[in-house]
Amino acid sequence: MEIKAEAGASFSHNFRFSQNDVENFAAVTGDNNPLHLDPDFAAGTPFKKPIIHGMLGASIFTKVLGTIYPGFGSVYLGQTLEFQRPMFVDTDYEAVFTIESIDPVKHTAQIKGEIKNKETGKRCTVGVATLMNTEKFRV
Amino acid sequence: MEIKAEAGASFSHNFRFSQNDVENFAAVTGDNNPLHLDPDFAAGTPFKKPIIHGMLGASIFTKVLGTIYPGFGSVYLGQTLEFQRPMFVDTDYEAVFTIESIDPVKHTAQIKGEIKNKETGKRCTVGVATLMNTEKFRV
Repeated sequence: MEIKAEAGASFSHNFRFSQNDVENFAAVTGDNNPLHLDPDFAAGTPFKKPIIHGMLGASIFTKVLGTIYPGFGSVYLGQTLEFQRPMFVDTDYEAVFTIESIDPVKHTAQIKGEIKNKETGKRCTVGVATLMNTEKFRV
Repeated sequence: MEIKAEAGASFSHNFRFSQNDVENFAAVTGDNNPLHLDPDFAAGTPFKKPIIHGMLGASIFTKVLGTIYPGFGSVYLGQTLEFQRPMFVDTDYEAVFTIESIDPVKHTAQIKGEIKNKETGKRCTVGVATLMNTEKFRV
C-alpha cells in the first residue's frame, strides 16, 4: 500500500472480531466486564447482546498504524478515542485513516481514525493518533 | 474498595505485564510491530529493548474502570491517551485514578488515569476516561 505522507492522504482497512477475540482480549487485559462476555448480563443492558471492549475495537488503530502505515518503527505518542456506538462480534467494520497534519521537523503526524460499520456506514469510534516515525515523516 | 462518587476521589491499582502478555496482545490485536516483540529490532531503537504496546499499557484503564470502579455496567464513552514514556515488561507500575467531574443527570464521569513506574515514580501514560454508569453516577 503506497501512502503519500501529506495531509489529506487516506487509506482504509477492513476487519472483524470474533467472540474468541473478545475472550482473549479479556484474558490479556483482565477486563472481564460481563457486558463483553456474558449474553445474559448483556441482555439486561440497552445493548441487548455483548459488545466488544471499546479498547479492543480501538486496537485496530495500533495494529494498522504500527504495522501497515506509518508502520514498523513508529512510536505512538497519543490517541484520543470517542466510543460513539457499540461494536459487535462477527460484524464487518472498516477503519478509515486520514492524515490530518505532519510535522517534518519533529517527525510526527496526526492521523484521524474512524471505525465504520460496513453494512450501515455508521461510525462507531473516532479518534486522532499522534505518532513519530523518523523515516516517513521528515523534510 | 469503597470509592465516593465525587470529584477529587482517588484510587490506585498495581500491575505488571510479562513478555507473554505482550505476545498475546500482539496475537489478539494483530499489532506485531517488532518494536514490541523483537529484542534485536528494539536494540536499534532509542529504547534499546522491546517496549509494551501503548494500548496494552492503557488497557489497565479499561480493566480497572470496567471491573473495579465504577465497574460492571459501565459504558466507555471516550478516552484520551498520552504515551509520555515507554513501558517495559516485568516492571511494577501503579495506575492512579482521580475523578475529575461527575454529571449526575447524564450519569457520566470523567476520570483521569495516570500510569507511574513504581520504582522511579515517573509518569508513563496519562489520559482521561469518560464513562456512563447509571448506578454510580446519579443524583
